[in-house]
Amino acid sequence: ESRLPGFATHQVGVAGAVVDESNGNVLVVQDKNKTKNAWKFPGGLSDPGENIGATAVREVFEETGVHSEFRSLLSVRQQHNHPGAFGMSDMYIICRLSPLSYHINFCTQECLRCEWLPLAELAATSQTTPITARVARLLLHGLEHGFDSIDLAMEELPAVYSGMFYQLYHRQLPPPQKPSL
Amino acid sequence: ESRLPGFATHQVGVAGAVVDESNGNVLVVQDKNKTKNAWKFPGGLSDPGENIGATAVREVFEETGVHSEFRSLLSVRQQHNHPGAFGMSDMYIICRLSPLSYHINFCTQECLRCEWLPLAELAATSQTTPITARVARLLLHGLEHGFDSIDLAMEELPAVYSGMFYQLYHRQLPPPQKPSL
Repeated sequence: ESRLPGFATHQVGVAGAVVDESNGNVLVVQDKNKTKNAWKFPGGLSDPGENIGATAVREVFEETGVHSEFRSLLSVRQQHNHPGAFGMSDMYIICRLSPLSYHINFCTQECLRCEWLPLAELAATSQTTPITARVARLLLHGLEHGFDSIDLAMEELPAVYSGMFYQLYHRQLPPPQKPSL
Repeated sequence: ESRLPGFATHQVGVAGAVVDESNGNVLVVQDKNKTKNAWKFPGGLSDPGENIGATAVREVFEETGVHSEFRSLLSVRQQHNHPGAFGMSDMYIICRLSPLSYHINFCTQECLRCEWLPLAELAATSQTTPITARVARLLLHGLEHGFDSIDLAMEELPAVYSGMFYQLYHRQLPPPQKPSL
């Protein structure tokens, strides 16, 4: 990457699609104060220094009361001049999470509704956003063919110069043929 | 996503892996002023309002003189307290590009070397960074099994509220069974 000094140009938002593999349900919310009540995945902005997966887990819990754990990165959206981003660009990332609890206790300040909805219903309804419908279809495909067909897996690797760690996301590879890595 | 006001927390860097499918070569550079001369993909920071793919194509041309076009997103890295990011977090994205020209005319201010290197060599050498070696292995897999096995494809979709467009990246889906989308 570049060695030139940089500055922050993006806010990062993360949503979590919590999928219950036992019944094909996914956790969705409807925002308050919207003219169109569309189902979407709970989520919000990353705090400074917060990992993508941590943001997803935290926001899902704050909005819905459901505990979950990070599984993979599914989708990345880049948007410029986003209304909520005050002239900055917006990176919006959707993760796949697994539920650790199931009881909903949703935040009535942020949400109008919160439900476990069948993925097939979310993929077919018009009461959702295009990106949510798209990811619902991805998740349905993952339920049927294995989530490795849609996941970007995460791995922590050491940074070359700083000695710190970073999170790397990409498609899972078959194990290396020779022990070169 | 959250309706709360946000602020920019991340700089976005983009690197381009330009793959010549006719011979399995990939375009790599070595930075100047590094103690360890490691092969890596050319890249740099996004300008404000610039799309991920546009950054990759621009940086590749500025560093190497090679023209290319965007094909897909391969990998996302998130790093906090990155030395070059002045306390902000860093999102570093590697894209796959296809060459539109092949003649190298590299920037001697930024680069020490620039070459078309066989992907198999880049995947095996110790003269590279862990993330570059990893992506070289991904690309080798893609060359052999089809790039749809490693790509996140890009699509432009209309934003629900603003009427503007955003770029969405995820694994390619089989075509829908019913015309619901």
